[in-house]
Parts: sequence; C-alpha cells; structure tokens
Amino acid sequence: MAEYKVIFHIDENNKWNLLLKNVSNLLNATDGEKVYIEVLANSEAVKYYDISQDLNTDIEIMENLYKKGVKFVACNNALTAHDIKKENIIEFVDVVPTGVLELVKKQNEGYAYIKP
Amino acid sequence: MAEYKVIFHIDENNKWNLLLKNVSNLLNATDGEKVYIEVLANSEAVKYYDISQDLNTDIEIMENLYKKGVKFVACNNALTAHDIKKENIIEFVDVVPTGVLELVKKQNEGYAYIKP
Amino acid sequence: MAEYKVIFHIDENNKWNLLLKNVSNLLNATDGEKVYIEVLANSEAVKYYDISQDLNTDIEIMENLYKKGVKFVACNNALTAHDIKKENIIEFVDVVPTGVLELVKKQNEGYAYIKP
Repeated sequence: MAEYKVIFHIDENNKWNLLLKNVSNLLNATDGEKVYIEVLANSEAVKYYDISQDLNTDIEIMENLYKKGVKFVACNNALTAHDIKKENIIEFVDVVPTGVLELVKKQNEGYAYIKP
Repeated sequence: MAEYKVIFHIDENNKWNLLLKNVSNLLNATDGEKVYIEVLANSEAVKYYDISQDLNTDIEIMENLYKKGVKFVACNNALTAHDIKKENIIEFVDVVPTGVLELVKKQNEGYAYIKP
Repeated sequence: MAEYKVIFHIDENNKWNLLLKNVSNLLNATDGEKVYIEVLANSEAVKYYDISQDLNTDIEIMENLYKKGVKFVACNNALTAHDIKKENIIEFVDVVPTGVLELVKKQNEGYAYIKP
C-alpha cells in the first residue's frame, strides 16, 4: 500500500474552487491508500475560512473533505492582518502561528508541495 | 556528472510561454548532464494541448523540447472537465488519470517542483 | 535546535510585497534557530532589483532581511531578457546563470520550495 503526504498552499481567494477540486481528485485517486492531505491558507486566502464574510465558502465540500481526513489550516499572522476573529472561522479549521513555517516543516517531513 | 529531476506544474494557460522558456533555459543550462523534465498540465492549462482549439500553441517549441527528452503530460480529469477529446491533443502528450497525484508521485521520486 | 532551509520563488512583480512579508514572518517565527532563506527571482520579477526602474522597490526592508541572512538572487537569463544592467541592480543581490536550475539545486540540497 502506497503512502502519500501532500501540503496544498493557497494565498489567493480566487483559487479555492480549483484547490478543492484538486483535493477531491487526489482523494478519489488514492482511495484505499494511506493519504495525508493538509491545506495551508495564508495571506488573503484565510478570508475564505471566515463564515461572517461573504466569499461563497463551500462549507459542504470542505466538511466532506475534512471527514475524509483532510486538514484545513490557517496562518495566524494572516488572520491578524485581516482582522479575522477566531470565533468566526469554520470550526474544523486549525490555526498555526506562521503559515510559511508550516509549509517548511511539512516538506521536511516528506510532504509534497502543490500550489494550485 | 550531476543528475537533475524536475516536474513543472501549470494550471493557467497564460503561463505557457513562461513555462516553455523556463524549460528551454533549464535544458541549456544542463547540457551534457542527466536531466529528467516533466511538464504536468491540469485545470484549464490542458487546453493548450488541444490543437483543435485556437490557443496559439507553440507546437514547434514543444516538439523541439520533446525531442530533447521533455515529457508533456495532461491530467485526464482536466481533459474530461474541459470536454477535450484525446484524439485532438498533441500526439506526444501523455495522459495520467489524476494530475495532482502525478505531482506527488514525482516529488516522492526526488523530483524538484517548480510552478512558473 | 531545528534547522530550516527554504527557497522562495518569485516571477511576478505584484507578488513582492507578499513575498517580503512571508520572509519576515518566517524569520520572526524561527528566531534563534538555524535558518537558510534564499529568494530566487526570475522572469519579470528581476525588475524589482533594478533601482533605475520605478517599481517602488522596498530596499529598506530588503536590506534589513539581507542583514539577517536572507539571500536575494536574480536569474541572469531574466536580467538579459529585460535589458537590465548588472550595475543597476541592488548591490547585495547575487546573480546565477539560470534561475530554474538554482531552484532545482536548492531543492536537491533539502531546501523547501515556497511560491507566494
């Protein structure tokens, strides 16, 4: 059984649909295999996690992916820079202090990097 | 003799000129060395492979790179999503079922990732 | 003590502010640790290094990062393509013959790749 570890990086809101499609396709293609997928959002892309804003966030698809094991993560520097309150972000989103450091750490752990 | 393995990722059609330039420069810089270069197109970027469309595809440059060993690959999910028939894509383009999985596999094999 | 090695890739001038912010955040987050950060600019992004042009280059921030160990590097192919004279680029910027080859070499040395 193959094992795959991937971190997706997103920093533009207009890439979310493409990213979620990419993640879905990857999950479908690796059904039955060991897969670790993390989605790391920084810069303006963290706004998509904020349900008090009107960015047409597709929570249903995200929750579906989350239930299949996908981790959604926000950069806290970006949350602060965009005045986003933690109580407003989707509940299953994790927060890390610094998004770019998370990208480095995961690659050091053998995660492949994909920027849609 | 050094050995280089690289996968270029493209998912936007307006990046093709830059990407092909990057690949040419890399080939020139590694003349006489062992180089494995793969170009993986997914999302709308697969349209560039479709010669029935009018995207000013520079087949001559692509063929020149192909003859020097560059692999051009299309994501089948993207071909389907954009209603592209396999008989219309450039003959030396390979098709993989899922582009993002290809990106992961190649990185697992030690390929560097570059997104122009 | 952890050790981090990162190469940031930039090929669009409108990404410089975001990139410099990313680098600053990474430095802040890894204070006291061993960190190697390189910023590799190719394509039009090398124009930002040219102080004879009017791209609102934030030399102060760059110099501050440089003094903290960040390496700024330009692709010579890109300098040539954009008619940029070496005497016009910021003095602490290094030049490599081929930017994409630098991206590959660094990843081969264990550098993580980040494209803001």
